Amino acid sequence: MSAPTQAHTALVQFDRHLLARMRNLQQHVSWFESTNGHVQDIEDAEQYELAENEFDSTRTTSSRKRGIYQEGDTIDWHREEAVERERKRLLAAQRGYRGLLALIADSSSMWLVTILTGIGIGTAGACLDVLVRWLGDLREGRCTYGFFYNQVTCCSGVDPGEVCREWQSWSEYFHIRTIFTQSLLQSFVYATLAVAFAGSAAVLVKTYAPYAFHTGIPEIKAILNGYVLDAFLSPWTLLIKALGLALAVASGLSLGKEGPLVHVSCCMADLISKMFKEVHARKRRVLTGAAVAGVSVAFGSPLGGVLFGLEELDTFSSGPNVMWRGFVTSVIAAMALQYIDPFGTSKLVLFQVNITEATTVWRRFELIPWLILAVLGGVLGAFLIRLNAAAAVYRRNSTVHNWPTLEVISCTAITAAVSYPVVFLRAQTSELVVNLFQECDPSKGDFHGLCNPTAIWANVFLLVLTAVTKIALTAWTFGMMIPAGIFLPTIAIGASFGRAMGLITEGLYRAYPTAWIFSSCPPEPTAKCISPGFYAVIGAASMLGGVTRMTVSLVVILFELTGALSHVLPIMIAVMVSKWVGDYFGKEGIYSLWIAMREYPWLPPAEYRDKGETAADVMKPAANLVVINENRDGCTLQDINQIANTYRFHGFPVVCGGQLIGYVTRDRLKTTLESLSEDDARTGAMRKCTFAPHPANGNMELINLSPLLEEAALQLREEMPLEVVVSMFQKLNLRHILFSHEGRLTGMLTKTDIVRLFTAQFPYTAALSEPRW
Amino acid sequence: MSAPTQAHTALVQFDRHLLARMRNLQQHVSWFESTNGHVQDIEDAEQYELAENEFDSTRTTSSRKRGIYQEGDTIDWHREEAVERERKRLLAAQRGYRGLLALIADSSSMWLVTILTGIGIGTAGACLDVLVRWLGDLREGRCTYGFFYNQVTCCSGVDPGEVCREWQSWSEYFHIRTIFTQSLLQSFVYATLAVAFAGSAAVLVKTYAPYAFHTGIPEIKAILNGYVLDAFLSPWTLLIKALGLALAVASGLSLGKEGPLVHVSCCMADLISKMFKEVHARKRRVLTGAAVAGVSVAFGSPLGGVLFGLEELDTFSSGPNVMWRGFVTSVIAAMALQYIDPFGTSKLVLFQVNITEATTVWRRFELIPWLILAVLGGVLGAFLIRLNAAAAVYRRNSTVHNWPTLEVISCTAITAAVSYPVVFLRAQTSELVVNLFQECDPSKGDFHGLCNPTAIWANVFLLVLTAVTKIALTAWTFGMMIPAGIFLPTIAIGASFGRAMGLITEGLYRAYPTAWIFSSCPPEPTAKCISPGFYAVIGAASMLGGVTRMTVSLVVILFELTGALSHVLPIMIAVMVSKWVGDYFGKEGIYSLWIAMREYPWLPPAEYRDKGETAADVMKPAANLVVINENRDGCTLQDINQIANTYRFHGFPVVCGGQLIGYVTRDRLKTTLESLSEDDARTGAMRKCTFAPHPANGNMELINLSPLLEEAALQLREEMPLEVVVSMFQKLNLRHILFSHEGRLTGMLTKTDIVRLFTAQFPYTAALSEPRW
Repeated sequence: MSAPTQAHTALVQFDRHLLARMRNLQQHVSWFESTNGHVQDIEDAEQYELAENEFDSTRTTSSRKRGIYQEGDTIDWHREEAVERERKRLLAAQRGYRGLLALIADSSSMWLVTILTGIGIGTAGACLDVLVRWLGDLREGRCTYGFFYNQVTCCSGVDPGEVCREWQSWSEYFHIRTIFTQSLLQSFVYATLAVAFAGSAAVLVKTYAPYAFHTGIPEIKAILNGYVLDAFLSPWTLLIKALGLALAVASGLSLGKEGPLVHVSCCMADLISKMFKEVHARKRRVLTGAAVAGVSVAFGSPLGGVLFGLEELDTFSSGPNVMWRGFVTSVIAAMALQYIDPFGTSKLVLFQVNITEATTVWRRFELIPWLILAVLGGVLGAFLIRLNAAAAVYRRNSTVHNWPTLEVISCTAITAAVSYPVVFLRAQTSELVVNLFQECDPSKGDFHGLCNPTAIWANVFLLVLTAVTKIALTAWTFGMMIPAGIFLPTIAIGASFGRAMGLITEGLYRAYPTAWIFSSCPPEPTAKCISPGFYAVIGAASMLGGVTRMTVSLVVILFELTGALSHVLPIMIAVMVSKWVGDYFGKEGIYSLWIAMREYPWLPPAEYRDKGETAADVMKPAANLVVINENRDGCTLQDINQIANTYRFHGFPVVCGGQLIGYVTRDRLKTTLESLSEDDARTGAMRKCTFAPHPANGNMELINLSPLLEEAALQLREEMPLEVVVSMFQKLNLRHILFSHEGRLTGMLTKTDIVRLFTAQFPYTAALSEPRW
Repeated sequence: MSAPTQAHTALVQFDRHLLARMRNLQQHVSWFESTNGHVQDIEDAEQYELAENEFDSTRTTSSRKRGIYQEGDTIDWHREEAVERERKRLLAAQRGYRGLLALIADSSSMWLVTILTGIGIGTAGACLDVLVRWLGDLREGRCTYGFFYNQVTCCSGVDPGEVCREWQSWSEYFHIRTIFTQSLLQSFVYATLAVAFAGSAAVLVKTYAPYAFHTGIPEIKAILNGYVLDAFLSPWTLLIKALGLALAVASGLSLGKEGPLVHVSCCMADLISKMFKEVHARKRRVLTGAAVAGVSVAFGSPLGGVLFGLEELDTFSSGPNVMWRGFVTSVIAAMALQYIDPFGTSKLVLFQVNITEATTVWRRFELIPWLILAVLGGVLGAFLIRLNAAAAVYRRNSTVHNWPTLEVISCTAITAAVSYPVVFLRAQTSELVVNLFQECDPSKGDFHGLCNPTAIWANVFLLVLTAVTKIALTAWTFGMMIPAGIFLPTIAIGASFGRAMGLITEGLYRAYPTAWIFSSCPPEPTAKCISPGFYAVIGAASMLGGVTRMTVSLVVILFELTGALSHVLPIMIAVMVSKWVGDYFGKEGIYSLWIAMREYPWLPPAEYRDKGETAADVMKPAANLVVINENRDGCTLQDINQIANTYRFHGFPVVCGGQLIGYVTRDRLKTTLESLSEDDARTGAMRKCTFAPHPANGNMELINLSPLLEEAALQLREEMPLEVVVSMFQKLNLRHILFSHEGRLTGMLTKTDIVRLFTAQFPYTAALSEPRW
């Protein structure tokens, strides 16, 4: 059969379905109640599926409007694809130029959303950058000729080396001369503003948008995996997260803006896509693109963003189309950011390393300190993950849980108190990282004596102190009631350790320039052989590898971030080793850990190896399922009605005469039943219906409900190895699978069951699962 | 049930299966022939699956040895995973330290293969580089103090700027003074050696390893997708491809070494993994790693290699584990290459662009020429694809097909004749590309007057001429009987156009330095504003985008290749636009086109949109299938024997009493039947057997064949939308799906059917499918 003929046949079939259904609806026959249904009473039935819960009525009406999914539901991608198919088919079925126009409008709206999202995110990222920089600088002083300039903009007219008189510290502003009073005032303003910023961020989050706390990446992973969490992407969350993020970053707490910016991007994409007709299957693509663009803007790394989307957000299975859309969104967002150019450097890159001829070559002996850094990164990364989990669990189970704002304020005060005395801690984290990555260059000035060759050991001590303090602060901060990302603090910790290692190596080289291990270096101790800045990059890569367990995307981000092109290989080795070491202490990265702790229905892409179990060993057996059970004569409308009203499961398997026929979702069932029942009530008839129209009894006036059955429901043999079942759930993004044996329903597995297989042996699983707001 | 208990139960079950089967084997009952089976005679049965064919007996015994797959088969990944599972389970079941050791040995052997492959590929790549460089230089002259030195090594002691006297051109060597005789001799030696190189490559390929021709990437894509083509990875192919590649590249034909190097890598990985126990499921991972490492070595781009594996070789669906292994192989191969350092530059990067402060900034108006380049790349890329397909089809259908060696020789002669007069064509392609990418720098010398500011328009003419000639030559060369990659020629074509565009822009700027469009440049015409070298990079990116339709990996490769970090965004835009433009002329990249032309069973990862068809519309209906049909009393051994011997399909659905029970593969069936039949022959009994042991007739002495059934066979409803079925084939790497309705077999779909859905409307499909050797 040729393609056009097939298409025509399909359309005719579809029309026939519609007609049949309409005819049924038009039969005005009344119905009356019968009290016996084929409903089975089961103890643990509630558990077989993520059911709608009692919060139902209190939830927002916005999700009602969509009609299908409730907060906390899992999206059925098969069904969504079917809906999208249907929609496209109807569009294409329109005749003439109107149909053509509708098709063009449809596909162009998708690209319009992509472009608008990209531009929006680029702009938002630029604004946030400016806001953060200004708020952060405000803690130390102000610009004389304009309150709203940050220090760099304020001093932009000054030649390097010259002192900038336009920027006044607060003590200069208040004309204080005594050094003691000066530093007292400075530290007082610094701490007060920090506390004020963080406190207002916490109040904003707590009052207006509780979902705006934390990084947001675990939730986005879950949402892309099919979890429904509309409040997480609401316009309010967008506003509060963006504002709170700027305040939180400026407060000097040990947190970064990268993860939350991804969340902001997704909120923005959701807002923009709501202006157009919304389809879940497409929304997912838009969200992926937005998340990618978020990373792209956060790091100024358009390529790293795409790879982050691929690797960490697990859009592997979504195939090249999703990647392509992410690529485009990422490019547009980066172009917008580049166009706005918030810092006037006309560079996207955040921490560009100064590449000189001397630094493009590395020596083989340097692999030894780098490997040490990689192992350290793996160990400390795993340690930071554990520490963070322990802190989160402690917070939840202690009284701290009840005073989130107070917690944030005290934590900020402690951070300020601890940070102020140590120069490297006092600086904004991104500034610290830039300077740690930078090679020493007399023409560029010295960042707090970091390049002073006589202070090597003092600097090593300070750097290690900075790193250790930051580990403790980050472990607690990441999880408080404020927007907080973990990327930047992790980079800072790793960079501190790395720079320290670089300084140590340099110190050794200067002390023993003729030792055999340094034989590839020039023998003069004053020569340039070691580049401590690059050690910082390696340290950051290792630490990030240990904390996030990303691989390829991490390397790309780092090497886009720093421009350390000639050093890809050492970065790759460091990431590889630190992942190996980290995996030894536990397979989960920090985002997977939070997903498990909050018990989102997220299926990790990891391979699952069963121990010989088959689906039959883990499935809910048929006896425990609520089943619509019709016999050869069909079943009464009322029986079905009762099942649909009694049980709030997502849907029910349909069995006819012992044979499994299919699966029907509850809301689809209810919508149809309501209108049918109304008809019955009016006419007083008591019709029967069937999901399996038999040719034999086609004249028996049974209402044909078979169009309600899910067209893409999967039925498998229960002897299927569990491994294969899990990989089907992972790769096809399924919501449930029915199992049958010789046509008889034997059981059912849902995504939740599969997720539990993965998280069952994990210590902190569900430690934070109950919503805390 | 706790996990250990489950595992124990599973083991017990498995033991029980084994015992039952052994008991059956031990019953010494004879058998005699019966002539009536439940075999259905069908016309088009041969077509329902890629069957073993009549070449069977003539094929190599190496594939026999493996016992399961024949050349041309499609691998059933589900089954392979099951085998791997079984193996791991048996390993883990061994008690005590022996079991532990076996497990450790098993997983370490996998990593050993990875490491050895990486090292091997790095070494092979380095050797090839040296060989190619030397052979290529030999066409122009020789080194006075050592015949086996290439020009660069020979002149390595000479300061830049000084004339190298150690390298003698052939006319110098023969002490010829007349300029005319000199150039006559030079061109004669050049052409003769080129023809000799290419001719010997063609003879080698034709005589010893016909699979060593062409790039190899289409075949590798098909193999990773499950196509069995063992001769393609044989040691002979490895040797001939490597040697032939060096000769072909050195001959100056318009071809590159990148694709073939991927093939060489895969051969090497296959050879190394054969030293260890071979399992298909693991072999695939090893091959992916090898392919990735091949790209990594070919370009000196470890990261680009990983992304190439992800995007072009479509290992998306294989998940993060495969990516991780590719990452490791790639790093190891790059380390090996770096360690050997064939050119003594201690740099991996092939065409490093000279980044100076002036070139890191680009102006917005430059987007206009870049967009023109991108559109040009898309159009010309699509054109090159069409031209290449037309050339391949013409070659196949004309008499040229019978004279492959002569074809290669004439093509080389023509290439040499055309190339020698044009300086840019005469240079080795990689040298040309390096110089096109390089910015003009007086201290580095001038490549054939490319930087001469007075010869801008002459250079533009020469560059366009070079590009156009190369398009024609490449379209013919890519597909001849020699190893040939398309990557490098494409880069060269794009770079020529790009550099020409850069020169034009620069010329315009110098002519009108104060025009408003150049307002962001300094107003002096002598100032540096345009970087023509970077235009060449953009041109190369656009052309590659048009030819290969890759996106992310292309950007990474290019920016790793050139180090043009600050220009990621323009490269991304160029790739994006050229892909859009190219897709307008046809969705297929050049590799997909060759796959379709040779009709490999490769499923593209592209989205398939049905027009309302369901599986029922395309499946082979049950009536057309060869089915093992048993009734409630089982069936005779002989019936099954007859089916297995009459039909050479991969396997058969099993139906019992009208109900579909499962699927059994022919080889599994035959192995069991042979031993059973021998027993029967000896004892004279005539036993019956069953695939569905019924508890009721368990005592009827039926032989239980149910363990032979595929455990992971998929049975779906025939109402399943075709789209969903296709995506299941794509994502789960299936070989076949059975369809049933209320338990009854209604039809079957195989991978070949699905591949045909994609290639059906494609003009050149199967144009080269019949094997030409």
